Amino acid sequence: MSDDLYRALFNPKSVAVIGASRNPHKFGHIQLRNLLEWGFKGRVYAVNPKAKEILGVKCYSSILEIPDEVETAIISIPAPIVPQVMRECAKKGVKLAVVISSGFREAGEAGEKYEQEMLEAARASGLRIVGPNTTGILCASTRFTTTFLPVAHVKQGPVTFIAQTGVFAGVLLLHIITSEHFGLAKVIGLGNKCDVEDAELLEYLKDDPETGVIAIYMEGVRDGRRFLEALKRTTPKKPVIILKSGRTEWGAKIALSHTGSLAGRDEIFDAVCRQAGAIRVKDFEELLDYIKAFAMQPIPDGDKVIVVSYSGAGCVTAVDHIVEYGMTPATLSDEALEELRRLYPPWARPSRHHVDAEPIFESIGPETYSRVLDILARDGNVDAVVVDVIALTEEHSTSVFYVEKDRLVDAFLQARKLAPKKPLLAVVNGEKKMVGEYRDALEEAGIPVYPSLPRAVRAISALCRYSRFRRRLAGPTHP
Amino acid sequence: MSDDLYRALFNPKSVAVIGASRNPHKFGHIQLRNLLEWGFKGRVYAVNPKAKEILGVKCYSSILEIPDEVETAIISIPAPIVPQVMRECAKKGVKLAVVISSGFREAGEAGEKYEQEMLEAARASGLRIVGPNTTGILCASTRFTTTFLPVAHVKQGPVTFIAQTGVFAGVLLLHIITSEHFGLAKVIGLGNKCDVEDAELLEYLKDDPETGVIAIYMEGVRDGRRFLEALKRTTPKKPVIILKSGRTEWGAKIALSHTGSLAGRDEIFDAVCRQAGAIRVKDFEELLDYIKAFAMQPIPDGDKVIVVSYSGAGCVTAVDHIVEYGMTPATLSDEALEELRRLYPPWARPSRHHVDAEPIFESIGPETYSRVLDILARDGNVDAVVVDVIALTEEHSTSVFYVEKDRLVDAFLQARKLAPKKPLLAVVNGEKKMVGEYRDALEEAGIPVYPSLPRAVRAISALCRYSRFRRRLAGPTHP
Repeated sequence: MSDDLYRALFNPKSVAVIGASRNPHKFGHIQLRNLLEWGFKGRVYAVNPKAKEILGVKCYSSILEIPDEVETAIISIPAPIVPQVMRECAKKGVKLAVVISSGFREAGEAGEKYEQEMLEAARASGLRIVGPNTTGILCASTRFTTTFLPVAHVKQGPVTFIAQTGVFAGVLLLHIITSEHFGLAKVIGLGNKCDVEDAELLEYLKDDPETGVIAIYMEGVRDGRRFLEALKRTTPKKPVIILKSGRTEWGAKIALSHTGSLAGRDEIFDAVCRQAGAIRVKDFEELLDYIKAFAMQPIPDGDKVIVVSYSGAGCVTAVDHIVEYGMTPATLSDEALEELRRLYPPWARPSRHHVDAEPIFESIGPETYSRVLDILARDGNVDAVVVDVIALTEEHSTSVFYVEKDRLVDAFLQARKLAPKKPLLAVVNGEKKMVGEYRDALEEAGIPVYPSLPRAVRAISALCRYSRFRRRLAGPTHP
Repeated sequence: MSDDLYRALFNPKSVAVIGASRNPHKFGHIQLRNLLEWGFKGRVYAVNPKAKEILGVKCYSSILEIPDEVETAIISIPAPIVPQVMRECAKKGVKLAVVISSGFREAGEAGEKYEQEMLEAARASGLRIVGPNTTGILCASTRFTTTFLPVAHVKQGPVTFIAQTGVFAGVLLLHIITSEHFGLAKVIGLGNKCDVEDAELLEYLKDDPETGVIAIYMEGVRDGRRFLEALKRTTPKKPVIILKSGRTEWGAKIALSHTGSLAGRDEIFDAVCRQAGAIRVKDFEELLDYIKAFAMQPIPDGDKVIVVSYSGAGCVTAVDHIVEYGMTPATLSDEALEELRRLYPPWARPSRHHVDAEPIFESIGPETYSRVLDILARDGNVDAVVVDVIALTEEHSTSVFYVEKDRLVDAFLQARKLAPKKPLLAVVNGEKKMVGEYRDALEEAGIPVYPSLPRAVRAISALCRYSRFRRRLAGPTHP
């Protein structure tokens, strides 16, 4: 990827919103507002032949009238007039057009013609296109965005998304902004991918210091070989998690009408991911679960996982899943076992392979998590820990299971200090409101929280899989 | 199950709390409080040789001193003294003892001896035992409960739980009470199952008019044949959903130390469920997802499912899952297709197999859901509908996707009236706070809400599977 394209995508000096609208319902209005209000430092121009001024920005009737260079154009006008506007953009020397409009290849023959014409208009001058049929771009560090979604509360962090769909990527963004605690580096909606594709972005993102984890939602790839090569160069440096839909024949047919994508044979795509060390997921829930783990936790050194639960049933459930996801229940050292034994009441015995904390709660109550985590953090036989927590209201502070939020968070932070390379994940259940509060407190402290043990164990399995992949790449270690 | 046992389990005339405690942290205190405060109409006695009175209830030093018959005893005292107390219960003519205490078979040899002694003491007089090592019983209609969890907000409804574990069942209950909108009929924690087992309960619950759906969490079955026979008699009348852990060798080992259960070979258990038409699930999330669907929605007539989403990606994702879960995307009738076409703008075309509502939102905005649901409710080619909803704050009420909560609920209720036999499920995503509000409003109106399309589709697949099972039982229909 050229530096020019990179700058036009994430940090343009000047931007034109073509199709800027006075109507606050329209994308072309909200995009302009986002550019003006979120803190983007570049120059912003508006193009609308029927308006004089929108949101205090003077309107030009064509991009050609703007008395300045325009690096990036955001296009939200009906598909039939996009080719003509693209010719004007090319003439103006625009580097990148982000085409939000739909009605192109995904909409049948006429649309395919518009897409072709638009592409030809752009190619002549080296103008690059993101889209059409997308929400476009968001960059948290430069605050450049073409999205029509609310961005005020976007938090900067290590996660970069490449998504092949507009509205869905938008809602995912809305969910992340309002519900998740991990931060975003960049979001790129590629839509129909008539020009810029995943592979080209990967080549850049693999070296992007702001990006720590890459998540991709795609419906199809045009150049499979190029994608595989780009993946192979990226995964040794950072984890790539891929959700590809259009897995079934029915799904593939719909993908064709949605983004004009050819989904391809699913087994082949699976093989590509495996070969390249990318982590393929089946749905958005799994995608978000893994992103959270990679964004907040270290990559473990091995596969030995231990569960701490307030209930025996939790232990059985978690251990079943640890085994089914291809990992091994940890086997505690003699020292750790002896230390645990001292926390148990006389009528109960610790196990070497899981920690049923119920009896410990009956003995030492609120100190349970800190004492147990301390032991597990120091035991070299443990690579990763999942802790199952009950959240109770103060009204039930008399319960032996009641542990104050701050004390719980401290227990994790102490363990994090002792064992910086061990993933620590939490599961929180119980009283609805308190579940939310405990989750927020833990995630703000960097501990990812899952709604169930199986999902936490699955997330650890993704960390372990990536760890195995990287160890395999590194080859055998010679002492 | 005898009428006596039934009454002692769910509607005893008199109850004794053995091990009633002055300490508000102890189970024996909270149980007594629950019995006194929740609205239970039977007589309540307390046994504690060291106290005169607890929570206004006079304490007896032994159950033998109570000057009244005692139908059910709740026992929360250390395991070693339970056998002696059980002999006293037998002498007193108690019908049922719910043994909350742990430290029995699950805790090794000494515990096994106590369990055996306790059983022998009970058997001599026909005294039955639930437990040990459990939270015991809750019945929403009689307000009888032996649990130490907060019960004030339990809602009565069609769901009955049988769970083989104390604390976990308790937390599940806490989650259900505070987060779910379906109501409970009965909850029975069986613990170590030294006497009363799942099969015996099923024989009763299959004819219990208060129970519409039965959910079981188990770690092991002692008498597999009896369980299979009881299941076979229950599933033609109501759905039974089973979560069994101890699936792997590791998990089975832990189950043995948790509830002293022999997990048995997992393939055999799978075959039992299939043969009996029970629905087996892999984790609590799946269990709750299915319970919600069965508790709130009708059983469909067939497998033809349609998805309505605000995004093409949602449609592709959902259709992949519809196919992967063994159902068929619906094929709309000509009439329905034509009616849909009239809702679309000229640049977009409806599909026969899914409804990408994004273009409809651009045309008719907030009326989208009601118009689309109306068409799908009336089309005989559709057996079940899943609707993917965006929840936005009023701040974004200018978005074409913004639909007021009440209008959305009305759209579902109208469709429910038109098509009382079609399951209608919703998926809600978007702004966190609004997601919660939309979910609450829809579920209060009887529409189950899921956090993702795959989970909603999976829940529909459980309804469809049960529908197929019942149609197969009914045999071929002759015109």
